[in-house]
Amino acid sequence: MRASRFFISTLKEAPSDAEIVSHKLMMRAGMIKRISSGIYTYMPMGLRVIRKVESIVREEMNRSGAVELLMPVVQPAELWQETGRWQKYGAELMRVKDRHGRDFIIQPTSEEVITDIARTELRSYRKLPVNFYHIQTKFRDERRPRFGLMRGREFTMKDAYSFDRDLDGLKQSYQIMYDAYVRIFNRFGLQFRAVAADNGAIGGTGSHEFHVIAATGEDAIVYCPNSDYAANMEAAESLPLYPARGAATQALTKTATPGKAKCEAVAELLQLPLTQTIKSIVLTVEKEATDKEPVSKVVWLLMLRGDHELNEIKANKIPGLAGYRFATEQEIVEYFGTPPGYLGPVNTKKPVTVVADVTVANMHDFVSGANEVDFHYTGVNWGRDLPEPMVFDIRNVVEGDPSPDGKGALAILRGIEVGHVFQLGTAYSESMKATFLDENGKPQMLQMGCYGIGITRILGAAIEQNFDDKGIIWPTSIAPFEVVLCPMGYDRSEAVKAETDKLYDTLLAAGVDVILDDRGERPGAMFADWELIGVPHRVVIGDRGLKDGQLEYQGRRDTEATTVPLAEVAGFIKARLVSQ
Amino acid sequence: MRASRFFISTLKEAPSDAEIVSHKLMMRAGMIKRISSGIYTYMPMGLRVIRKVESIVREEMNRSGAVELLMPVVQPAELWQETGRWQKYGAELMRVKDRHGRDFIIQPTSEEVITDIARTELRSYRKLPVNFYHIQTKFRDERRPRFGLMRGREFTMKDAYSFDRDLDGLKQSYQIMYDAYVRIFNRFGLQFRAVAADNGAIGGTGSHEFHVIAATGEDAIVYCPNSDYAANMEAAESLPLYPARGAATQALTKTATPGKAKCEAVAELLQLPLTQTIKSIVLTVEKEATDKEPVSKVVWLLMLRGDHELNEIKANKIPGLAGYRFATEQEIVEYFGTPPGYLGPVNTKKPVTVVADVTVANMHDFVSGANEVDFHYTGVNWGRDLPEPMVFDIRNVVEGDPSPDGKGALAILRGIEVGHVFQLGTAYSESMKATFLDENGKPQMLQMGCYGIGITRILGAAIEQNFDDKGIIWPTSIAPFEVVLCPMGYDRSEAVKAETDKLYDTLLAAGVDVILDDRGERPGAMFADWELIGVPHRVVIGDRGLKDGQLEYQGRRDTEATTVPLAEVAGFIKARLVSQ
Repeated sequence: MRASRFFISTLKEAPSDAEIVSHKLMMRAGMIKRISSGIYTYMPMGLRVIRKVESIVREEMNRSGAVELLMPVVQPAELWQETGRWQKYGAELMRVKDRHGRDFIIQPTSEEVITDIARTELRSYRKLPVNFYHIQTKFRDERRPRFGLMRGREFTMKDAYSFDRDLDGLKQSYQIMYDAYVRIFNRFGLQFRAVAADNGAIGGTGSHEFHVIAATGEDAIVYCPNSDYAANMEAAESLPLYPARGAATQALTKTATPGKAKCEAVAELLQLPLTQTIKSIVLTVEKEATDKEPVSKVVWLLMLRGDHELNEIKANKIPGLAGYRFATEQEIVEYFGTPPGYLGPVNTKKPVTVVADVTVANMHDFVSGANEVDFHYTGVNWGRDLPEPMVFDIRNVVEGDPSPDGKGALAILRGIEVGHVFQLGTAYSESMKATFLDENGKPQMLQMGCYGIGITRILGAAIEQNFDDKGIIWPTSIAPFEVVLCPMGYDRSEAVKAETDKLYDTLLAAGVDVILDDRGERPGAMFADWELIGVPHRVVIGDRGLKDGQLEYQGRRDTEATTVPLAEVAGFIKARLVSQ
Repeated sequence: MRASRFFISTLKEAPSDAEIVSHKLMMRAGMIKRISSGIYTYMPMGLRVIRKVESIVREEMNRSGAVELLMPVVQPAELWQETGRWQKYGAELMRVKDRHGRDFIIQPTSEEVITDIARTELRSYRKLPVNFYHIQTKFRDERRPRFGLMRGREFTMKDAYSFDRDLDGLKQSYQIMYDAYVRIFNRFGLQFRAVAADNGAIGGTGSHEFHVIAATGEDAIVYCPNSDYAANMEAAESLPLYPARGAATQALTKTATPGKAKCEAVAELLQLPLTQTIKSIVLTVEKEATDKEPVSKVVWLLMLRGDHELNEIKANKIPGLAGYRFATEQEIVEYFGTPPGYLGPVNTKKPVTVVADVTVANMHDFVSGANEVDFHYTGVNWGRDLPEPMVFDIRNVVEGDPSPDGKGALAILRGIEVGHVFQLGTAYSESMKATFLDENGKPQMLQMGCYGIGITRILGAAIEQNFDDKGIIWPTSIAPFEVVLCPMGYDRSEAVKAETDKLYDTLLAAGVDVILDDRGERPGAMFADWELIGVPHRVVIGDRGLKDGQLEYQGRRDTEATTVPLAEVAGFIKARLVSQ
């Protein structure tokens, strides 16, 4: 490509609504242009990156045996009503009526349409397994779109859907996708981690997220540096920090802790470690009225060590706690006889259901609120001062916690979720009656998996991981151009023009994605543009070097240029392209 | 591709709602799947064709210097309100509100968004000319979606928009696009014609349509077999059929024509040629009330030769007639003193504005209605019996009419419109204030062109042009696969398997898009599938032929197979691919 035939539009300053570095740099590099909140035009420079991301995804999906089709953007509400998502999806689902008043949605995902296809096309076991995917425009009407392509409303996603005859088949299809994702993210040239994830509301039996590692990532990724263990914060298992419970050595003592409502303040006042204190969290579960019973309410007390945090997802999985909410102050007063701040499991006003975190269950001589303003108990001990609790893992792990696989201490990284693989099982097959006939002519539910990659989000994530104060640093595989040729005086020096054109033709013929900057910009402006845009390899052709038969090469991360003899430059560049 | 790794799903019968051959065959060949009225999933076999069409379009657009970007599907209403199309577009424009109640549309086209980009990005003459294009999902809420991909609601279009500094530049950009379109349609391997078109409501100064020729086409294409002249019916110019007006030889005579309201019946009764009769068409133009005048109404009488038809588009261009409607019976009685059937220009009850078609203006001694039930005038002559009329070309041409370029007689073909190039001029620039600064720092309106190709519609048009009773006959360049290998007993005969695999690998390595049918179907079913799907080149590998070192090749249009020696088959196929 010659720059004069392309469209390059860089900005010195990012617009004020750009909050994070990838958004700022994509705007400044002329890769995206905002049309409305969370809706962007992908400008020529940005679209090239998207196309490269799509190509890698497509190649690896095809290699894995998945088959590409294209489902529509506008989908009839009837299918979404069959699965109940028309009702459940909420305001993020963009709803639209056609000229006849019929309801449609702009697809945020395509489980319904693919299951509709499956139930008519996959009627025999002979058609299975199959994995359909498409790369299509999606829309989610985010409450607060922001961060450019990271949390937009219109975006591009690759979504794949596998259909199998049984769970073993599903697990195989899932593993094939997992492996394809590993190849895809490796080819992107990004540091990433696949982590075990919670299945969430979508239901099903297994799930992993793929995160691009970035200090600015929204998600915490938990992993063990000595092993393969990795999970997102929601799913990471915490083990008891004490192998067994110690014996009681202190008497239960009510202690004045005036004005000290927080564990940290109590520990400081009593000159005890924070790890000897207990945090009390009160949750309420309301049950709907039935024929036999009126509305009922159960209040739960969850106990965490003073330095730990509740994991709300884990809490929601405790039998009986699903759908909980935090208790109101009125409820707390009703059950504990005191407002929040000095709550504890001993001497509650009304009975509450107590759950201890696995670590708390092995604590002894601990400190908790006394259910009286300005007082705590010290020397609290299970069995003696209060009954044995239910025990569950209900906290977020922290750095240094033991890895669940016993292979060392956990570490935590920040990540940006860009991919997700999911064993859906029969959730959609059942609601949409998607069955196939087995060898005996007996109908069986299709076992389904779904697999997403946020194509446009990859751009944001790649930049959050790879930038410096000059701009973006694209991995070669997804850079808008692999190499930029910067001639010094292309329209002044015949030698420069001749050597530049020759190198350009040589690289093109070798299949290198090269751009020749023939715009006639001054060197400073030219270099600044390409550093901002983030082309990973630059060659400068100038009269001074040519006199000695030399060009200058500089990788985007290099601090200095390398002098390369003219005759060797093509080979030199090709070697660099392979290595990076 | 191995068929066992692809998704093939053919039907014996087309669904009953498929009215035309391309719709039927695409459904039967498993290329599309209906999700809702006018909304389809492009199944794997159909998507391959779409991708090939897109690739050809993209390559030729890039070759022409156009730059690809991607504008969003969901666009804010504000931009459409600026140009007034939010109000004017009507029910085809799919409107949608987001969670905050803000108005958006699902794009049917992107003039507004690209002009918004242009007015911020193309502020200097140095950025011009530029031509942006995208290939994107479109939605038009057709009143009656039908014919599969020919008149769907959701479809894929390539739309390009050129920006120039002046009209000369626009004309150059337009010609570059016109030439690119000729290359594109040639590469599709389709018979097509570019025809001059009316600019229509969109405004502007020049326009051509690209039609794929097909007997089932909705549009009439007028052309001169001896020259380059070609236009669609709306735009095709009709010349006077008489070089000059003959002198009056008959007296004006009121003649009884009881019950003969139609020209054909009158001519038969009077034993005169139909070409001596005149057809009267009454139109009304209403003017809105102004401060000075109340609502006013002007009634027009348009006169056509008895065997000719009104061209409504041409009529609408007559000064004063824009926005006309056909007169009501009440208006006709008011102005002519008689209900429709015996109307004419002589002795109207109230004055009407008379327009004669260019051919009628040169007629003499003609027959028209007498404005009295059951009576006509014969021997009507201009100047003597009625004043000289205004003269305009207001009729549709017919086969055999003289070509406007004087090079012979016109012929008419049926076509399917699949492309359109348009000189928009400053229509959008003005409403959206899209200006650039010229060399003198003076703001100038951007001159704009727009250029569309209906990507998904191409599939329907290609099939309407190329099918037989067995199925589709794809041109090689857009076929889902170029070559199919049909082994006879792939899983039974080692020799067949070995030779098939070898040929498959050889063709793949040569860059041939080949599919190996390893599904284990019976030969009859296998051949029927591929003839239905329309793969243009088939190779049959069987034990009988292999004994003699031979394979069988058959082109999709060939009536018989050709025997090809094993050693020559790869070269033979490659030669056939080039020739077709």
